[in-house]
Amino acid sequence: MNLVLLFAEDFVADDRVVLRGRRREHIAGVHRAAAGDVLVAGVANGRMGAATILRIDGESVEMSVALDRDPPPPLPLTLVVAVPRPKVLNRVIAGATSLGIKRLFLINAWRVEKSYWSSPRLSEANLREQAIAGLEQSRDTILPSIEVRRFFRRFVEDELPEIARDSTCLVAHPYAADPCPRSIAGHVTLAIGPEGGFIEAELVSLDRAGFRPVSLGPRVLRVETAVAALVSVISA
Amino acid sequence: MNLVLLFAEDFVADDRVVLRGRRREHIAGVHRAAAGDVLVAGVANGRMGAATILRIDGESVEMSVALDRDPPPPLPLTLVVAVPRPKVLNRVIAGATSLGIKRLFLINAWRVEKSYWSSPRLSEANLREQAIAGLEQSRDTILPSIEVRRFFRRFVEDELPEIARDSTCLVAHPYAADPCPRSIAGHVTLAIGPEGGFIEAELVSLDRAGFRPVSLGPRVLRVETAVAALVSVISA
Repeated sequence: MNLVLLFAEDFVADDRVVLRGRRREHIAGVHRAAAGDVLVAGVANGRMGAATILRIDGESVEMSVALDRDPPPPLPLTLVVAVPRPKVLNRVIAGATSLGIKRLFLINAWRVEKSYWSSPRLSEANLREQAIAGLEQSRDTILPSIEVRRFFRRFVEDELPEIARDSTCLVAHPYAADPCPRSIAGHVTLAIGPEGGFIEAELVSLDRAGFRPVSLGPRVLRVETAVAALVSVISA
Repeated sequence: MNLVLLFAEDFVADDRVVLRGRRREHIAGVHRAAAGDVLVAGVANGRMGAATILRIDGESVEMSVALDRDPPPPLPLTLVVAVPRPKVLNRVIAGATSLGIKRLFLINAWRVEKSYWSSPRLSEANLREQAIAGLEQSRDTILPSIEVRRFFRRFVEDELPEIARDSTCLVAHPYAADPCPRSIAGHVTLAIGPEGGFIEAELVSLDRAGFRPVSLGPRVLRVETAVAALVSVISA
């Protein structure tokens, strides 16, 4: 937790918060912080700055908060990713959020196992929790929008063209001939398939929506590694 | 397992292998493969190609192997990384290996918790297992060399200059003024600190060894995300 993310309900005065539960435990147990210590904090979807601990005990921590700066700029990249294995999902969401992505779609694809759709990890509450973990890691305050789409064709044909309008549209495909372009100016919409990739018919649908297949080379990467690698090459 | 990694002891004839245990279970349970199916396979530190299943049962799988191509080229990058939390270590090793890194040092640093050093995950057997997972993921056969160094200064002063000779030497530091350079030609040696970064005295030691601090921006990334992001930007 490199930033303590605060919410409206934490405030007991304009510049004072009281935290209980997970955040208090982390501040006490991991940061081993005491009264007088200063932590980095920020308000969800707002500014960030310093939080000074006034009092901490086994139940709550009270801090005075001075918010003097904006969070880092968002990454101009929309990520469309096939639902990964539940074991991997949390890391993909937290990782993508830590990279600064603010719009994310989790979609179906032929090679997404049906059983993944019944995972409790796809719940709104869990997705939000992982996004918060990504913000706390990377020192950001702006929560990403994360949407889940159960039907590939309906999404790609009816929604994606509008979502991707005026952006560079790329689909990551390990066997694509073109290398992933670097340092793209402007907004990018990046689609990443399931383990094993999108099938041919899906690539055709994506092509019709304007998505060009690109690759980082012959190595097949895990989704979480691929997200970090592609997003960084595109944005650096 | 996008590639079945084979070892000398698997061969029962020049072009035939018999596998038991984890790889058989994966071929049966995840690939759901049957006699006649063809998988991608490769010999550890050797060539790769196709493995045709001759016979598979609850105990073993027999395959005929035709190795007709070289593995992908290695990444010309040596990674020096402070020992991460045991929970994260496996993913860092497998991830770095999947990116094509062939030389990796796990080192101590001020902010590495002492308890990490007693983790069984730092054993040679576990490090090798994670490296194999990275090769199986990325379709590569060349095992990386992974070395563990308990003493920061001794390593940086006595060994690192020789390890890093004739390479571009970079240390990732979230607060560095210079952005991480892209698409570097030639060999790179990249040092990545613990959560919280290297301390000032360590940066001074690294500077004396020729390492220039660079950053990917103000966001603090988890080690595994940082490795994928930095390595891809440097190599793309």
